[in-house]
Amino acid sequence: NAKRIEGLDSNVWVEFTQLAADPTVVNLGQGLPDISPPEYVKEKLSKIAAVDSMNQYTRGFGHLSLVKALSCLYGKFYQKQINPTEEIVVTVGAYGSLFNAIQGFIEEGDEVIVMVPFYDCYGPMVSMAGGTPVFVPLRSKPVDGKRWCSSDWTLDPQELASKFNSKTKAIILNTPHNPLGKVFTREELQVIADLCIKHDTLCISDEVYEWIVYTGKKHFKIATFPGMWERTITIGSAGKTFSVTGWKLGWSIGPKHLIKHLQTVNQNSIFACATPLQEALAQALWVDIKRMDEPECYFNSLPKELEGKRDRMVRLLDSAGLRPIVPDGGYFIIADVSLLDADLSDMKDSSEPYDYKFVKWMTKNKKLSAIPVSAFCNAEVKSQFEKFVRFCFIKKDTTLDAAEEIIKAWS
Amino acid sequence: NAKRIEGLDSNVWVEFTQLAADPTVVNLGQGLPDISPPEYVKEKLSKIAAVDSMNQYTRGFGHLSLVKALSCLYGKFYQKQINPTEEIVVTVGAYGSLFNAIQGFIEEGDEVIVMVPFYDCYGPMVSMAGGTPVFVPLRSKPVDGKRWCSSDWTLDPQELASKFNSKTKAIILNTPHNPLGKVFTREELQVIADLCIKHDTLCISDEVYEWIVYTGKKHFKIATFPGMWERTITIGSAGKTFSVTGWKLGWSIGPKHLIKHLQTVNQNSIFACATPLQEALAQALWVDIKRMDEPECYFNSLPKELEGKRDRMVRLLDSAGLRPIVPDGGYFIIADVSLLDADLSDMKDSSEPYDYKFVKWMTKNKKLSAIPVSAFCNAEVKSQFEKFVRFCFIKKDTTLDAAEEIIKAWS
Ligand SMILES: CSCCC(=O)C(=O)O
Ligand SMILES: CSCCC(=O)C(=O)O
Repeated sequence: NAKRIEGLDSNVWVEFTQLAADPTVVNLGQGLPDISPPEYVKEKLSKIAAVDSMNQYTRGFGHLSLVKALSCLYGKFYQKQINPTEEIVVTVGAYGSLFNAIQGFIEEGDEVIVMVPFYDCYGPMVSMAGGTPVFVPLRSKPVDGKRWCSSDWTLDPQELASKFNSKTKAIILNTPHNPLGKVFTREELQVIADLCIKHDTLCISDEVYEWIVYTGKKHFKIATFPGMWERTITIGSAGKTFSVTGWKLGWSIGPKHLIKHLQTVNQNSIFACATPLQEALAQALWVDIKRMDEPECYFNSLPKELEGKRDRMVRLLDSAGLRPIVPDGGYFIIADVSLLDADLSDMKDSSEPYDYKFVKWMTKNKKLSAIPVSAFCNAEVKSQFEKFVRFCFIKKDTTLDAAEEIIKAWS
Repeated sequence: NAKRIEGLDSNVWVEFTQLAADPTVVNLGQGLPDISPPEYVKEKLSKIAAVDSMNQYTRGFGHLSLVKALSCLYGKFYQKQINPTEEIVVTVGAYGSLFNAIQGFIEEGDEVIVMVPFYDCYGPMVSMAGGTPVFVPLRSKPVDGKRWCSSDWTLDPQELASKFNSKTKAIILNTPHNPLGKVFTREELQVIADLCIKHDTLCISDEVYEWIVYTGKKHFKIATFPGMWERTITIGSAGKTFSVTGWKLGWSIGPKHLIKHLQTVNQNSIFACATPLQEALAQALWVDIKRMDEPECYFNSLPKELEGKRDRMVRLLDSAGLRPIVPDGGYFIIADVSLLDADLSDMKDSSEPYDYKFVKWMTKNKKLSAIPVSAFCNAEVKSQFEKFVRFCFIKKDTTLDAAEEIIKAWS
């Protein structure tokens, strides 16, 4: 095999999703909604499947009706016209957008700044392109007894600045953040923007949870900061936007001089995305674009629904004494599980971090699954997070009931 | 941008599909069926779209019901059990399979043998991985006046052997061949197999048109030749199998020690393919797996339907004096268009090959579109093919009628 994939074969999703496949397990692992996607979204796909031409190849860089809908939707947020064919590329999920951006810009010897914890694929994708991830930790302020919030986790501006050098090619930003649930503030983003501009660095901004932000918090797009549009690739996701993760459609938005290189990678790797899904997504977007200010708009109703689920999870984890980190966005919550007793003696020979062993034990013995947070950490930082486990809460009430029962009986 | 994509931005599909977008143009360009896909295939997708869980992530290396169906289908042809989870990976079209295979095995300095003409993405994909494509031409025997057939185009075994050396990492085979329509014989494949075994070379066998083979010809799988299974990756396509190119689903089949590296590339680039399409494809495959020996089976009825269309195209091109190369497989036909008069004086400053200029002129002035064959050639060989144009014939009769009218009025 080629050197570029050496050591990149293990993957937390493959491993833990397989473990959780047992139907008696309550799966709060992978970010897989078990709530119903909106009816009109599913209906659009059903109807489009019957149209002959919608089953054939479409434009490689994105089905025209879809890029037009995205251009209209995001034009409102960027307060500028987004050119649908030159400033957008549709990809195989946000994953595909990350891959295109990294393959398009990173080469042997380049450094890419990545915050820890990080969505797990950033590291391997940078390595596969020949680059080196340079990690900078999000650090928690002491909170002694007070509620612990994702906003208590911050970057030290000096520490971040110290990571930039002449080899720095890009920084990957993720807001709202997975797994922490942190929504970066305007001030925090300004620090990052200033450094990107000073060091002429590309910013890859993974904003797949952009709509899922809770009361009192606001999502800012770093691409709208002065001097940032021309150096930012902003990534979004149909899966997260409409709770249809299985559609595997994402997009990158940015200036033509950046997007054209992502288009080149797309054209030489997968060529085009699935037509029926793209057309259905375009039609679904129009439904909600036309009612953006109404509470029924899914971009508004989904975070509202999820906020109730978040609050429920906080109460549950609190009552079990697990000190959850309350997320301001996204649909994951992290908690310290070291208080829950688990007999890991069977696994004492394993060299895995505590949280890996714990989740495996919990899945098998308590029939509850989650994701170990050290999966989102580089080797040096793993040990700081190995008491933490990530629970996904975009789940119907009966699933959360079942999880509640397990945790209450246990703690 | 990264060096790996330098010079890889132009693409014949992007260019000529855009040209043909004018609705008054009869488009025989890109391999885009305008016949109806089978009703049950579309219906499966319509129904599945309504099932909540079918809109969420599935297994990264391939939806389980799909890899099981593929394992059953291909088990019959390989006369061996194909392990559904370890010997198959589902990809974003056959394009994605080619990309995974090349990224998984080719690195800086490796050589990859490619026959000319070749499906256009092979070259850029090898370059993007840092490898060098080494071209070997398919040569035509003199046919003086006789009907010209794709089987008249052959590899010179000595010339092929001369391309193998210590840097040769892989050979890309394509049978049935696009654009020539050649179906490699058992003897021809044995020559390739012997060289692969002698030089310990990987064989990437692109067999997307495997079902589309005409009377008197037979498709052979090089992976079934002695000593070849362990060194062959065989690529198939849902788009070509069920005339649903817009589904963008393909697969690679091979031994675990090869497939696992394609899985690693898949997992670090797109992670998974769309769930509803994979489930619909699995269900559609079962319909035809159960009636493989019946004429109604789509694998049997499609080539039959296409054979009539091929014969019609041959007659039409013959009558216009264009000396078509009669294809034994696939749904393309190549013809020498230099006899058709075209006033290219407007384009005389362009440095493009004749066939590029010709197709552009034809699209604009005759409202008929096709693909220039030099797009499938390396620089040295381009000039030998620049009188040739490729017409796609997986088109409904009314489309072929319209094409016929244009060519008859012109010649
Ligand atoms: C590739 S699986 C992705 C799921 C996800 O985004 C998450 O659970 O964080
Ligand atoms: C990427 S477009 C592919 C179409 C095709 O396979 C062909 O026309 O040869």
